[in-house]
Amino acid sequence: MEKTITVLPGDGIGPEVMKGALRVLKAVEARYGHQFNVTEMPIGGKAIDETGLPLPSETLEQCKKSDAVLLGAVGGPKWDGMEKRPEQGLLQIRKDLNVFANLRPVKAFASLGDISPLKPELIENVDLIFVRELTGGLYFAQPKRRTGNEEAVDTLYYHRNEIERVVKKAFEIAASRSGKLTSVDKANVLESSKLWREVVNEMAKSFPEVKVEHMLVDNAAMQLVRNPGQFDVIVTENMFGDILSDEASMITGSLGMLASASVSEEGPGLYEPVHGSAPDIAGKNAANPLGMVLSTAMMLRHSFHMNDEADAIEMAVQEVLNANYRTSDIESKKGRISTTDEMVDQLIYRLDENAATATLLEVYV
Amino acid sequence: MEKTITVLPGDGIGPEVMKGALRVLKAVEARYGHQFNVTEMPIGGKAIDETGLPLPSETLEQCKKSDAVLLGAVGGPKWDGMEKRPEQGLLQIRKDLNVFANLRPVKAFASLGDISPLKPELIENVDLIFVRELTGGLYFAQPKRRTGNEEAVDTLYYHRNEIERVVKKAFEIAASRSGKLTSVDKANVLESSKLWREVVNEMAKSFPEVKVEHMLVDNAAMQLVRNPGQFDVIVTENMFGDILSDEASMITGSLGMLASASVSEEGPGLYEPVHGSAPDIAGKNAANPLGMVLSTAMMLRHSFHMNDEADAIEMAVQEVLNANYRTSDIESKKGRISTTDEMVDQLIYRLDENAATATLLEVYV
Ligand SMILES: [Mg+2]
Ligand SMILES: [Mg+2]
Repeated sequence: MEKTITVLPGDGIGPEVMKGALRVLKAVEARYGHQFNVTEMPIGGKAIDETGLPLPSETLEQCKKSDAVLLGAVGGPKWDGMEKRPEQGLLQIRKDLNVFANLRPVKAFASLGDISPLKPELIENVDLIFVRELTGGLYFAQPKRRTGNEEAVDTLYYHRNEIERVVKKAFEIAASRSGKLTSVDKANVLESSKLWREVVNEMAKSFPEVKVEHMLVDNAAMQLVRNPGQFDVIVTENMFGDILSDEASMITGSLGMLASASVSEEGPGLYEPVHGSAPDIAGKNAANPLGMVLSTAMMLRHSFHMNDEADAIEMAVQEVLNANYRTSDIESKKGRISTTDEMVDQLIYRLDENAATATLLEVYV
Repeated sequence: MEKTITVLPGDGIGPEVMKGALRVLKAVEARYGHQFNVTEMPIGGKAIDETGLPLPSETLEQCKKSDAVLLGAVGGPKWDGMEKRPEQGLLQIRKDLNVFANLRPVKAFASLGDISPLKPELIENVDLIFVRELTGGLYFAQPKRRTGNEEAVDTLYYHRNEIERVVKKAFEIAASRSGKLTSVDKANVLESSKLWREVVNEMAKSFPEVKVEHMLVDNAAMQLVRNPGQFDVIVTENMFGDILSDEASMITGSLGMLASASVSEEGPGLYEPVHGSAPDIAGKNAANPLGMVLSTAMMLRHSFHMNDEADAIEMAVQEVLNANYRTSDIESKKGRISTTDEMVDQLIYRLDENAATATLLEVYV
C-alpha cells in the first residue's frame, strides 16, 4: 500500500523519538511491501523559530493532504514568556484537523510489573482504551467568563451530534475488540450526562454485538485503581476523559510508554505519544522511544487498517522489554540502561526476526 | 465537657455500626469525664416508614440544636420506586445544615497493606485529607437544562464567597497538621479555576505558616496513584473533589474504613462513614464498624476539639487491626472474621487499656 504521512517532530525529545519511529516505519515498509511517503514539517517552538508561528499554514496544508500525521512533542523553556506559545500549535492543529475523538490505550507489559504502583496481579491483564471527546464540553463551551472580581462561570454544553460521533467511534472500536464498552458519565446529577447516556443507549441498538455498561465518573475513578483489568473500551466526555485517562496512565508506571491517537470522521488522524517534550533530557539519546513507536503502530492500525504490521510492532516492543532493554524512566534492576537508539535497534532486529519467522511459516504452510 | 449529639442511624447497616460507635463514645465519656447527651432520630427509609418523609422536621430541628450530628447510612431496595427516596433525606440535611465543606481523610493502616491495590511501600506513609466544596459548582448551579432532544447544558458557577469559606477551612486544617496544602484546579482552562486559584493565593497571605502548591486536576489524578504519600491537605471544588476523593478512597483498600465530616461555618457538623447502607449484609452483625467509629473520632476532633480522645480512638483502631481482628471486607489471611460487635468489643478493651496506661504514666510523671 502507498500512504502519505506528515511528520511533525517538534521540540525537545520530539525529534529523537520521531527518528526512532521513522526507522521502525522503514523496517515495516520494507518487510511488508508498503510505500510510506514521509514529509517532515515544523510545528511548535521550532516553527516559531523558523516562521514566527507555532503552526505555519504550510504545515497545516501538508497535514491536510496526508493520510495521517505523526507528532513528536512541542514546547520547552526556550519559548517561555514569548507571545506565541509552542502549545498553541498543538491546540490549533487538533482544531483544524477536527479530531474530535482522542484514543488512549493503556496496556500493561508483564515485564514492567516492577515499575507500576499497583500490585502485579492487578495489572497483568490490563488492556484498555479510552475514547475521549476532545473538542466540546466544559473546556470549550460558552459562556466562560469572569464577572468583576466576584464571580466566574464555565459552561458544560453538548449537542447530540457531538456526542453521537464520538460514541459511534467507541462502539466501532469495542466491536473490533472484546465487544465490551463502558460509558462514563454523571447522569445522576448532570443534564449533559443524561443526554450522553440517552445517546449511548440509542447507539447500542445499532451494535447488538457490543455489551454496554454505564458507570458514574466517581465510581470509574475508584474502579481504575481497584481493578483496571475489568475495562476494555471506556468512552466519556472531554473533562472526565482528561482526568480518568491521566489517572489510568499511571497504571503502567511510565508515561514514556503511552501512545495516543486523535481522529476525525474523515481526514487524517493525528498520532502522538502521551509524554511531553522533556527538555531536561533532550538531545541526550536518553528518551524512551516506545510511546512514539506505539503511536506509529496505532496509525498503522487505525488509519491504514494494517493490523498485522501494528501487531508486529507491538510484539517487538514486548520482546524488547522482556529482554530487559530499558530507558531510565522504566529502569529495571535486571538490566542496564539503553539509549534511545539502542532501544530502536533492538526493535528493528526483532521486526526482522518476526518477518523472518513469518516468511518461514509461509514457506512451510 | 457536656455535648449534645443527634444520632441518625438510618437504614441497612446504619443502626449496627451506629450502635458500635455509641458504645465507643460511652467508653470515651466514662474515661475522659465527659457527658454526651445523645438523642436518636429517624432519617431516610426509616423516616419514610414512620412519617412519610425522608427528613421529618422534628429530626432537622433536633439536629440544629445539637453540637454535632452522627449519621449511619440511608437507602435500600425496600424504598426503590417510591415517590420519596431515602437519599433525599441526606441531601436535604446537608443543605439545611449548610455544610459547605466535606472532609475526607485517607489514612493507610500498616496492617492493611495486603488489601490495598497499591504496593505497600507506596501507601505506608499515606495520611491525607480532602477538603471538598460541597454545595456549589457544576452539580448545583443554574442553568442546568435540556433544550429539546438535541442540547444539554450544565453550569459551573462559583462566587468568591463560596470559595473563600472552604479554602479558609482547608488552610486552618493544614495549619493544624503538617502545614502543607495542595489546591487542585484546572486553571489552564477554566475561568472558575482561575478565580479559585486567586482566592487561594490571597488567603495564603493570612496563613504564612502553610506552604501552598497548585496542582491541575488531571495531574492530581495521576499523583494520587503514583505517590499518594506526597499529599497532606487537598482542597478542591465540588466535582473534582467528588472524583479525586473517591479515587483516593481505594488507596486503603476498603471503603468500610473511611470516615467523613461535613461542616459549616457555625452550626453542627455532620459525621458519617463513606460507605453506604449495604442492605445485603444488614442485620447480620457482619458490617465493618470502623468507618462509623472513625467518623465519631472526627466529630470529637473537629466539632469538640477533643484531640486526645480522637487520638485514643484512632490508636485503638490501629491496634485492633494490628491484632488481625477483621470484618470480611478487610479480610486478612492471618486472622479469622470477626463480627461487628466483636470488633467494637476489641476497641473498647483497648480504649480501657489506653486509659489505664495513661493513668499509669500520669502517676509516674
Ligand atoms: Mg490531561
Ligand atoms: Mg462520589
